[in-house]
Amino acid sequence: MLDELKNSVFAANLALPEYQLVTFTWGNVSGIDRQQGLVAIKPSGVDYALMTVEDIVIVELESGRVVEGKNKPSSDTATHLALYRAFESLGGIVHTHSRHATIWAQAAKPLKAMGTTHADYFYGEIPCTRPLTSEEIREDYEANTGRVIIETLHNHNIDPLSIPATLVHGHGPFAWGKDADNAVHNAVVLEEIAYMNMCTLQLAHQQPPVSQELLDKHYLRKHGSNAYYGQ
Amino acid sequence: MLDELKNSVFAANLALPEYQLVTFTWGNVSGIDRQQGLVAIKPSGVDYALMTVEDIVIVELESGRVVEGKNKPSSDTATHLALYRAFESLGGIVHTHSRHATIWAQAAKPLKAMGTTHADYFYGEIPCTRPLTSEEIREDYEANTGRVIIETLHNHNIDPLSIPATLVHGHGPFAWGKDADNAVHNAVVLEEIAYMNMCTLQLAHQQPPVSQELLDKHYLRKHGSNAYYGQ
Amino acid sequence: MLDELKNSVFAANLALPEYQLVTFTWGNVSGIDRQQGLVAIKPSGVDYALMTVEDIVIVELESGRVVEGKNKPSSDTATHLALYRAFESLGGIVHTHSRHATIWAQAAKPLKAMGTTHADYFYGEIPCTRPLTSEEIREDYEANTGRVIIETLHNHNIDPLSIPATLVHGHGPFAWGKDADNAVHNAVVLEEIAYMNMCTLQLAHQQPPVSQELLDKHYLRKHGSNAYYGQ
Amino acid sequence: MLDELKNSVFAANLALPEYQLVTFTWGNVSGIDRQQGLVAIKPSGVDYALMTVEDIVIVELESGRVVEGKNKPSSDTATHLALYRAFESLGGIVHTHSRHATIWAQAAKPLKAMGTTHADYFYGEIPCTRPLTSEEIREDYEANTGRVIIETLHNHNIDPLSIPATLVHGHGPFAWGKDADNAVHNAVVLEEIAYMNMCTLQLAHQQPPVSQELLDKHYLRKHGSNAYYGQ
Repeated sequence: MLDELKNSVFAANLALPEYQLVTFTWGNVSGIDRQQGLVAIKPSGVDYALMTVEDIVIVELESGRVVEGKNKPSSDTATHLALYRAFESLGGIVHTHSRHATIWAQAAKPLKAMGTTHADYFYGEIPCTRPLTSEEIREDYEANTGRVIIETLHNHNIDPLSIPATLVHGHGPFAWGKDADNAVHNAVVLEEIAYMNMCTLQLAHQQPPVSQELLDKHYLRKHGSNAYYGQ
Repeated sequence: MLDELKNSVFAANLALPEYQLVTFTWGNVSGIDRQQGLVAIKPSGVDYALMTVEDIVIVELESGRVVEGKNKPSSDTATHLALYRAFESLGGIVHTHSRHATIWAQAAKPLKAMGTTHADYFYGEIPCTRPLTSEEIREDYEANTGRVIIETLHNHNIDPLSIPATLVHGHGPFAWGKDADNAVHNAVVLEEIAYMNMCTLQLAHQQPPVSQELLDKHYLRKHGSNAYYGQ
Repeated sequence: MLDELKNSVFAANLALPEYQLVTFTWGNVSGIDRQQGLVAIKPSGVDYALMTVEDIVIVELESGRVVEGKNKPSSDTATHLALYRAFESLGGIVHTHSRHATIWAQAAKPLKAMGTTHADYFYGEIPCTRPLTSEEIREDYEANTGRVIIETLHNHNIDPLSIPATLVHGHGPFAWGKDADNAVHNAVVLEEIAYMNMCTLQLAHQQPPVSQELLDKHYLRKHGSNAYYGQ
Repeated sequence: MLDELKNSVFAANLALPEYQLVTFTWGNVSGIDRQQGLVAIKPSGVDYALMTVEDIVIVELESGRVVEGKNKPSSDTATHLALYRAFESLGGIVHTHSRHATIWAQAAKPLKAMGTTHADYFYGEIPCTRPLTSEEIREDYEANTGRVIIETLHNHNIDPLSIPATLVHGHGPFAWGKDADNAVHNAVVLEEIAYMNMCTLQLAHQQPPVSQELLDKHYLRKHGSNAYYGQ
């Protein structure tokens, strides 16, 4: 059971350089086994090219204690755990500094839906958090990064699997999904949207006129009980 | 006969990731056998890396009924069929969310000819459709996407093989050609033009001053009875 | 002797897709044997992946007559020949639609020197031609493209090996050098400069303040009797 | 001992094309053996694909005299030596014309910290030098390039290992680190930041609102006695 989780988290981490979402070690993917209350996550600062499945670290969901693995877990582990605790539906989480999603986080602007590519995966605007306060940065920084994402989703009344990503102000994106592989999938889409929105604004100068019906149609072609995309 | 069509449609679909026109499964190519009234098309939501020629689906042009293949056809099949029915000259059709063509579709702006690269392939401005109405989105969405493309070509009095692409408002490009391979070829050119037009406007701020004679010259070097490009 | 020329022109043509200067067949390189008055050039519209050295066409410098090869020469052959006739120092010529050089040609703007990368290869501003007249387009279009490049170099009092490229208005770049390989080398640099100038203007909004002394220094580090770059 | 230095400098030079920081031969990496007072550096104008470890040149730190190797050292050797002499902490130095860092150098603007990616590696703004004077360009140009970098770091009161790069006005970036490999690592990060800052300004139009506490937190997660990133 844990082997399967570790394998899937290992594979999802290797997908980050493959999809060109990371430079060096700037990213991490985790996955959770809800029954055992255990989270598998990338070790901190380990080179993707040298990492093996044995390097994946297992931590307890509630305590954060390492229960398997010789490495220190990702420095962002506390962010992942906070999100898993707040949202039962999350099976995998990914953090990257992918170029264009990070650009929007640095500009402190949400990603509004500008077309059907967005709507195929995200059922509404992808929010950007408020900045952390000095206090939140000083103590428990990584857990507070999780908390501000949770606060943002609550404030916008967002179901996290319907809008599976948030931009962290001045930092970069977190994305998630039903498992580690799906989280990376959503991170790839987020990066694609982030690039296209930047360029669309360059052409259109303002939010382009896409109808809510079109956005809904595309989301619901792919999600929910009336979905008819795929096999 | 069908084997040849299926092989060519399979190869044309694989050309999409090769030319970096698609992310994941975001695209589909079809080809038609006019004599038999049959269309071969990509299966819905199938990974390009895993797809085999047996996965290609055969549907009837008129009814849309699947007559060969174990998969569901692309969710955009009704758009393809509408275009094949409206325009006898079409032998292949492709839909992608290629980045820069999509950007123009999101900005809801046509691609004006800004130089000879455009003119070598497109004999005039590549139009963008009007938005679909709520009614058109709610019922028969994919067929209506085809209809709005047809309406756009009619309104602009366009011969579809002379301007083998249209941008669908808020969505992305459809391109076509005399067969599936040629459709993908045109989709590659479209993406190239879309990138270059975006950047040209960044430098020139307005439609640059290219003469109609130059555009005509380049199109007619490559097309029609006086063409002299190629072997 | 001709074999050597054909081999070098073949290799230089294959360098175009390698350096991502061309899509499909959108480019051509030639080289000249001045003693024999013969020019080797890419065949028209032939796929780089399928081209062999035997496909390279030999034409006479003065007459343009094909003297060796089973293919039609590049449709731009008359442009190449006009340049070779006007400038004795040219050993190789290349035409591409490389993305960013083409963007400047479409915007009808010269490439001003904005830094040492430009100055390392180009001893002054890279000009853009005037548009061709309707008459020049209608008759002898390709030869007239050569003539307008020659006129541009003369008007700017440019030694073609010191500024080995020109942008053709609404079309794209021509570059050249002491041989075919050197011509492609300069085309790669041109594309690099074109990208960087576009982005530099995005940041600086106007021609940035680079001194003539710095530009001269860099050009003369690499060229002329006092050059000290390289082995 | 020298073999180890030469190997590491050779490997670091090969990393430049791998990370797409250089076109042709436009870059050079050096490393120093402080005990012996010897610097290993790339030979001038040698193709990365053809270079072997034997081509690396050894020069004396103080005199610049070649003590090993059949090639001329990089034409930028005097810049490297000036920096090594001024800053004891430098173990490796790299110069490139990487696209986006060069763009900022051409625009003559420093790279302000716009997010945590910057802060993870650079403890403050990455400065741009003043332009060299005509006299500084005319005589001893490369040594003066080193001097103006040193002056810039002194004027901004910068510890070179805390902000391991400077943009040279109208030219391009120099970066450094504790050894040759680390210098290239910092040059990769610099290029990444340079791209993201350019795009962030496109979205945000002005310096985005990132707090000093956040920047400090990220730098100190990775550097100094309280660092907790990595194994």
